[in-house]
Amino acid sequence: MKKSLLASLTFALAAPLLAANVHAQAFGKAQDAIDYREGAFQIMKAHFGALQPVVKGQIPYDQAMVLANVEILDQVSKLPWKAFGPGTEGGDALDDIWLDEEGFKAAQKKYLDSLVPLTAAAKEGNLDKLKAAFVDTGASCKACHDSFRD
Amino acid sequence: MKKSLLASLTFALAAPLLAANVHAQAFGKAQDAIDYREGAFQIMKAHFGALQPVVKGQIPYDQAMVLANVEILDQVSKLPWKAFGPGTEGGDALDDIWLDEEGFKAAQKKYLDSLVPLTAAAKEGNLDKLKAAFVDTGASCKACHDSFRD
Repeated sequence: MKKSLLASLTFALAAPLLAANVHAQAFGKAQDAIDYREGAFQIMKAHFGALQPVVKGQIPYDQAMVLANVEILDQVSKLPWKAFGPGTEGGDALDDIWLDEEGFKAAQKKYLDSLVPLTAAAKEGNLDKLKAAFVDTGASCKACHDSFRD
Repeated sequence: MKKSLLASLTFALAAPLLAANVHAQAFGKAQDAIDYREGAFQIMKAHFGALQPVVKGQIPYDQAMVLANVEILDQVSKLPWKAFGPGTEGGDALDDIWLDEEGFKAAQKKYLDSLVPLTAAAKEGNLDKLKAAFVDTGASCKACHDSFRD
């Protein structure tokens, strides 16, 4: 009973962070967390990568196609961060993720913030804005990879 | 000009299937498709798995937590199927996926259909319905894995 009450309290306290914390409990083993976050990054890479031929002018601009990719990118970009919990070192992750938590958080924020104008440009159907936002998002990916990915 | 028109037509024709096809073009190499689909399955596994302690009564029922997991499961469950294109054999995928396309499509449909009552139960906040739907979804996962996963 006591344990159950404590668990309820923990859930209640966690509620404001729920969107981010929702799957933290699902990682039985560190490898599960590693597979999860690397899976999310694969999906992000594919949908961000799908924009590249558009912004390079290699394929015709198609707003619906761009928006569909950006929406999936947005959704999946929420996921990987909570899978870098304590004790989940490994995979492509450099130890600096755990040694410099603030720096890693700042890099995440820069990336997530960069998605706001990207999404706005995709919704607006403005190719010039999309190009500029694509460059900024790409730069934030690279900056984080340079510092925190092996 | 002709090529560009053809490309536009192709996009226009693809529009009704866009949600499913949106990332098909993003796979430069077969390994990209394999990593993508296996990444999606990792995420699906984690969020479906997060429901298990709830339906087993090992943690208190929390509707917001359940719904957040089911919503991510729904979103990501749309993704992996188009990454089983021609020439992407490998990974955990059995060749039967390409030898028995209809069977694989039917197994996908059974799984995706099973998410409808799961999502309804999560939204309704009905634990009994959630338990029943969880068992059905789990059975559809297992059936597909038994036939099509190494």
